[in-house]
Amino acid sequence: MDELPTPIAPPPVDLGRRLVAEGIGSALLVVAVIGSGITAETLSPDDVGLQLLENAAATAGALIGLIVMFATVSGAHFNPAVTLVERLLSTMSTRDAAAYALVQVVGGCIGAILANAMFTARTGLGWVSVSTRSRDSGGELLAEVVATIGLILVIHGAVRHARPHVVAVAVGVWIGGAYFFTSSTSFANPMIAVARTLSDTFAGIAPASAPGFVAAQVVGALVATALVRYLFAPTRR
Amino acid sequence: MDELPTPIAPPPVDLGRRLVAEGIGSALLVVAVIGSGITAETLSPDDVGLQLLENAAATAGALIGLIVMFATVSGAHFNPAVTLVERLLSTMSTRDAAAYALVQVVGGCIGAILANAMFTARTGLGWVSVSTRSRDSGGELLAEVVATIGLILVIHGAVRHARPHVVAVAVGVWIGGAYFFTSSTSFANPMIAVARTLSDTFAGIAPASAPGFVAAQVVGALVATALVRYLFAPTRR
Amino acid sequence: MDELPTPIAPPPVDLGRRLVAEGIGSALLVVAVIGSGITAETLSPDDVGLQLLENAAATAGALIGLIVMFATVSGAHFNPAVTLVERLLSTMSTRDAAAYALVQVVGGCIGAILANAMFTARTGLGWVSVSTRSRDSGGELLAEVVATIGLILVIHGAVRHARPHVVAVAVGVWIGGAYFFTSSTSFANPMIAVARTLSDTFAGIAPASAPGFVAAQVVGALVATALVRYLFAPTRR
Amino acid sequence: MDELPTPIAPPPVDLGRRLVAEGIGSALLVVAVIGSGITAETLSPDDVGLQLLENAAATAGALIGLIVMFATVSGAHFNPAVTLVERLLSTMSTRDAAAYALVQVVGGCIGAILANAMFTARTGLGWVSVSTRSRDSGGELLAEVVATIGLILVIHGAVRHARPHVVAVAVGVWIGGAYFFTSSTSFANPMIAVARTLSDTFAGIAPASAPGFVAAQVVGALVATALVRYLFAPTRR
Repeated sequence: MDELPTPIAPPPVDLGRRLVAEGIGSALLVVAVIGSGITAETLSPDDVGLQLLENAAATAGALIGLIVMFATVSGAHFNPAVTLVERLLSTMSTRDAAAYALVQVVGGCIGAILANAMFTARTGLGWVSVSTRSRDSGGELLAEVVATIGLILVIHGAVRHARPHVVAVAVGVWIGGAYFFTSSTSFANPMIAVARTLSDTFAGIAPASAPGFVAAQVVGALVATALVRYLFAPTRR
Repeated sequence: MDELPTPIAPPPVDLGRRLVAEGIGSALLVVAVIGSGITAETLSPDDVGLQLLENAAATAGALIGLIVMFATVSGAHFNPAVTLVERLLSTMSTRDAAAYALVQVVGGCIGAILANAMFTARTGLGWVSVSTRSRDSGGELLAEVVATIGLILVIHGAVRHARPHVVAVAVGVWIGGAYFFTSSTSFANPMIAVARTLSDTFAGIAPASAPGFVAAQVVGALVATALVRYLFAPTRR
Repeated sequence: MDELPTPIAPPPVDLGRRLVAEGIGSALLVVAVIGSGITAETLSPDDVGLQLLENAAATAGALIGLIVMFATVSGAHFNPAVTLVERLLSTMSTRDAAAYALVQVVGGCIGAILANAMFTARTGLGWVSVSTRSRDSGGELLAEVVATIGLILVIHGAVRHARPHVVAVAVGVWIGGAYFFTSSTSFANPMIAVARTLSDTFAGIAPASAPGFVAAQVVGALVATALVRYLFAPTRR
Repeated sequence: MDELPTPIAPPPVDLGRRLVAEGIGSALLVVAVIGSGITAETLSPDDVGLQLLENAAATAGALIGLIVMFATVSGAHFNPAVTLVERLLSTMSTRDAAAYALVQVVGGCIGAILANAMFTARTGLGWVSVSTRSRDSGGELLAEVVATIGLILVIHGAVRHARPHVVAVAVGVWIGGAYFFTSSTSFANPMIAVARTLSDTFAGIAPASAPGFVAAQVVGALVATALVRYLFAPTRR
């Protein structure tokens, strides 16, 4: 009773179905991120900014589609940081939150393999190719903290509009923009940080850099939780 | 009574009018796909990725417009794979579904001719020019299965928001993104696969490649139907 | 009573205010079309497709903003072809429709001058510079017929969703796409055809070409009116 | 009682929380504008139009996300010109309006520093680097008047749709378009004009040019207030 109502808390659907939705959604999100990165770098070889624009636009479109797809089934988290915040706000049990995070990561890794498999003819790489791209500057870690805070605030601001498709659109276009306005291209999602280690292409991240990104995202999630508690508490008139 | 409610099932409009809507909508969709491909390849000759971005953005805009246009008349399928799923879910009769598919394909072919006719001055081609572009790699066929599953899940997730314009936006931006994140550029529509054989331009597909695409799309539709039955079944509380 | 209800029929606001809204909206629409064309051609000199993408995206954004702005005041026509269809469907009097068309054209011409004035430092042209760009091929005239039919169908399909912002989004993204998928770049608006004669820049049209465009748009509006009467008639169950 | 109802008037949330929201939102808006400008100019060095497209798209996405985020908390102004109009329409007290403007400017400056800090590795600049980019042509000042009028009209037209997310989408895409269709790239926000003096990068403005921009924005806000009073007054039937 003392907790915030958070409309992205999972709907009253049985856990098995919610986990399948989280797994499929996470896989398709990673397909979108990695696949569009491969298309961008191979078809627009002369301008990295244009590559990022193509990657960002495709990710935004996919995110909107995926959140609309599963908002009514699992809440459409696809992101352990989002699930962690729900747990901290007591809208999910520890067991459910852990299960969510697990299927998200497993689904995301399957998505990375699927993306690689679709594009082998274009990349010349196998179904798994470990990324060699270092992402570990201080600016990038700061950016991941900011990016995660921003994402969580967008989600929790958006749920107060009481229309799940508003969450979808707001999150999609925010992340699309954040690819450009954060120096880390706004992963803002530990599942994404892990899955993107499995593709040595545009969207990849070297395994050695992933823990730093995840840590920065957790810091961002903790700060964001405090802000959500303060900013979006029910209004007392 | 045991079947799922599927809000994209055709509205209670007489069949003749619904078929005219499906025909016009399919024609305009193909005009959008082929026409924007022609503009892209002729005006942005130096970067294939930029061509695809222009083609994807125009297709997304057109899809949103077209689904909004006819959602209240015919359900705005414009896609035999979507109609097949409705038939399998028992929301349409076999007769209506067959009529839908027929006018979709006829409308789409008229749309291809119309697109070619608008751009003869720029392409130097006639009103019909059979495509010579092979699209038959294993990665592309896998991509069509994934693309069709994704599209059907987006549609059936979106209809649960009970606002037809949410379907329009979700489908439009999803397909726009999928042009980049699938290696086949996400046809995900047998009508499109047939109609695009009729234009030897950016969006074309060689007639020999079309059956493989259609087969992959049917496989995707069957898998998606099973997923829809499981994931979106009415919640029992 | 026998006529269709058409939610874009003007709201019950006094005519003076509606005309001011139509005039300002038309001016800002022309500012958007011409101004973004100037920015595009001067800042992206090497790729005409990219220029068109920038012009299309800016026009789409402006259209969404402008229709949202004045939907509740004047119905947000900004287009004599749209007003003509309303008159043919008997939702407006001849006097009001004529007044709408007049202020649209006057507003649009003021908008062209305003756009030119903002960019004199970049173009080196005066506040009025008559366009020298011929647009008179058969393919372009066919495209204007198709473009106008498409626009009217999007509008009248969208109004059936009973939310004016759906009209705004559907029209905006449709026109943005149609810049690419029609060979005329989809003027679809006699006011636009007239106003764009006043700027010898990217978006211009030679005065000799404007009458052909307007005629094609009127043909499109007449065909579209028949389609609207048939397709969107109230459902008899 | 005689004043207009203006739904962007602040919600009944305590002032402290509203100010924190305005501060965070302003900071993130400036991060988006400056950060995406840095990414654009460093990753797309060969085409200034493409840089502006990337900057505009990212800004639009961020604006939609931020307005959705805080619409229900503070009204999501993030702009002293918007707050000034609310004060003139008597929906806010002078004290609250002044507090809003103050935290907006402070938040925006913190956002500029944060953007610089994230990208030091790419720009080679420090956390604060005063812009040297003059923006003071007559065309640009005229553009800021037009841009501010347009923005205020979009906001006040959009609030009449009674759905805050419509404001978010309309404002976001309008500003994204206005980056191209105004010769000043549409600051339309005194907070933005001040904060952007602190970054000598793509989005910067020399301190000597900022007062002219602010003055033009105030003129635009005054004109817009008169138009809002006239155009959006309650309808008397």
